[in-house]
Amino acid sequence: MSRFVTREKLTILYDTLENQGIDVLFIRDSEEHRDVNMKYLSGHPEDASLFIDIQNRQTFLVPWDYQLAKDYSEVDQVINIADYEGGLIPATSETLKKIVDSNPKIGIPQAIPYGYVQTVLDQIPDAKIVYNPREIDSLLDKLRSTKSPQEISLLKKSIEISNQLVDEMEERMTNHTDIKTELDLALFVDIRMRELGAFGVGFETLVASSARSWQIHTYPRADQLPMSRPGLALIDFGVNAAGLTSDVTLPFVIGKMNSKMEKIVATVEHAHNEAIAKLDEARFLHEVAEVAIDIIEAAGFKMPHGLGHGIGLTVHDSPFLRKKPTHETLLNNWTDTPLEEGMVITIEPGIYEKDVGGFRLENDVIITSKGPKVVTNSHPVYIDQ
Amino acid sequence: MSRFVTREKLTILYDTLENQGIDVLFIRDSEEHRDVNMKYLSGHPEDASLFIDIQNRQTFLVPWDYQLAKDYSEVDQVINIADYEGGLIPATSETLKKIVDSNPKIGIPQAIPYGYVQTVLDQIPDAKIVYNPREIDSLLDKLRSTKSPQEISLLKKSIEISNQLVDEMEERMTNHTDIKTELDLALFVDIRMRELGAFGVGFETLVASSARSWQIHTYPRADQLPMSRPGLALIDFGVNAAGLTSDVTLPFVIGKMNSKMEKIVATVEHAHNEAIAKLDEARFLHEVAEVAIDIIEAAGFKMPHGLGHGIGLTVHDSPFLRKKPTHETLLNNWTDTPLEEGMVITIEPGIYEKDVGGFRLENDVIITSKGPKVVTNSHPVYIDQ
Repeated sequence: MSRFVTREKLTILYDTLENQGIDVLFIRDSEEHRDVNMKYLSGHPEDASLFIDIQNRQTFLVPWDYQLAKDYSEVDQVINIADYEGGLIPATSETLKKIVDSNPKIGIPQAIPYGYVQTVLDQIPDAKIVYNPREIDSLLDKLRSTKSPQEISLLKKSIEISNQLVDEMEERMTNHTDIKTELDLALFVDIRMRELGAFGVGFETLVASSARSWQIHTYPRADQLPMSRPGLALIDFGVNAAGLTSDVTLPFVIGKMNSKMEKIVATVEHAHNEAIAKLDEARFLHEVAEVAIDIIEAAGFKMPHGLGHGIGLTVHDSPFLRKKPTHETLLNNWTDTPLEEGMVITIEPGIYEKDVGGFRLENDVIITSKGPKVVTNSHPVYIDQ
Repeated sequence: MSRFVTREKLTILYDTLENQGIDVLFIRDSEEHRDVNMKYLSGHPEDASLFIDIQNRQTFLVPWDYQLAKDYSEVDQVINIADYEGGLIPATSETLKKIVDSNPKIGIPQAIPYGYVQTVLDQIPDAKIVYNPREIDSLLDKLRSTKSPQEISLLKKSIEISNQLVDEMEERMTNHTDIKTELDLALFVDIRMRELGAFGVGFETLVASSARSWQIHTYPRADQLPMSRPGLALIDFGVNAAGLTSDVTLPFVIGKMNSKMEKIVATVEHAHNEAIAKLDEARFLHEVAEVAIDIIEAAGFKMPHGLGHGIGLTVHDSPFLRKKPTHETLLNNWTDTPLEEGMVITIEPGIYEKDVGGFRLENDVIITSKGPKVVTNSHPVYIDQ
């Protein structure tokens, strides 16, 4: 494997952080704290610290699994923690010490564990933490928000398998075949995507039968509940074919709907279609989110999540499609994100009403030089009973 | 669902933090940062902020999914983020503001995201962050390190299914049935545990055929590689039957071993058995780790991970079985952990040699009033070819 960031984008990262006076960027990924920037900037899949030496334009990786890093990462130096008594923490501190001069300014992303920063920097008392999420996180998010041609070509493999799965699920569900429970449907998708060549799921497959589709993220993600129960149901799945994941929600209408369900389904479809139409002309992403939110609120509902998000090395990648806030404090921290070529985003309006049901329709869209292109094939599936 | 912490332990938490002058304990769980203390202290499965008001002995939950929290959590108040413009962040800050007086001292665990703490506390300029991992994290870890009778009874369901899976895998692998690849074996376990009544996997099932068993945590966790390749192979899996997870590694010896493999297998088995024997008499956990590490090092190998860890609501729960450090700085941060009734731990020595193979034998042990009891049935499985 190699890193996903392009050389051009890495240069932007170095130049921008250098202008901000940052000496080292400190990235951390661990079992309880995943940071997609690890894979993006180093190629190393998981469990490591990464130091990006801005002045000398060099990268240092301190992985938990040295052999894995040797095979997967693309960095200037891989540190073997077995060479340090006490392992990871001393290895990480010592590596940082070797990179920096006096009074180093260490840039960190927002999500890095508080304690990890404290522990590592404890060994370098004159280090200054530069916590500036509007500059550091925004920059990283911006770099990841448009995909390189190579990333898009990898993503297309995931899209292709997703579309095949949608067709096969529609056939199986409408013909009342062997899929009886939420878990049957989840396992069908999990196994079938591998037969079709996927590396694995992009995230844990989520199936909500009509008994609980009002939950936004069902817990557990798939259970033994019967899929045949009349009402609104859905499956939300992602295919990771070659490192990048798709994200699709296929909704089902099972049996006859009551008038409340009809209103939910019609509103979600309308919001979905109008949001996609808006992609043709919108300058900023929030305009697209607002079209869908206005439709949903005009119908008397409230959407408890954003309209969509980028997809890539992680399922919830930048950019995010949210309404522009009106509250002053929130507005001060807001930057309009323009629609740009190379973005790959989901459009996924949803409405969730307890004791009625939940309905979400989600497709993936690539913003190309010729405009937005819906690349997945999800649509409401009607199942007679 | 309800919270897992007992009333007695919650009282210890309140009393201890009150003595330390902490006003509120701030716990956070999100998609990219899981904190087992969320589930442990509130019962809520995921994606929320939890404030524990120490003085008034009350708990406040700010969940992403309000309906889910209503069904799953056991707290004094659940906040609906839909009531706040801007959602999660304002809801979280406002909730904290309502709880605290002036100059509040906010206790945080080590792993909480740096930026999340900064963002929430930005709204409360006179708040003081109490970052004291040796007191806050050690206390939470200590509370979770011994399991209540209710937790042990839930865990026994996971153990029972794990043992059935070990028997069935041994049968299938030795009789050369339908399991051809790593993925076949992983999917067999993932599907079969659900047929046997499990809620799901405790963690992503890891299978390493002999082609890559020298990786500690294979990446991807299970691939299309053939299991029949001669040499050392293994499956590392966890069953989550009722909220708590088991953790078992079943190692395979496929075909004839060369002398290096024989030495690895014999050393790991010896370290495993001697560590378990040591549990009968050891006062402290590090003594158990040291028995195994000494055996492995005397044979000329190095173990790249700890000897074992607690299991529970998360697979890597406290306590941890590690060698006592000799380095002065590390020793200053070290506390001897005594073996205690109610602990449920793994014993999992392993050796990994590139181009030879990796071998890990892992069983789960409950420390009862009558001494340690090995409750899983893993052992090397020899497969003729």
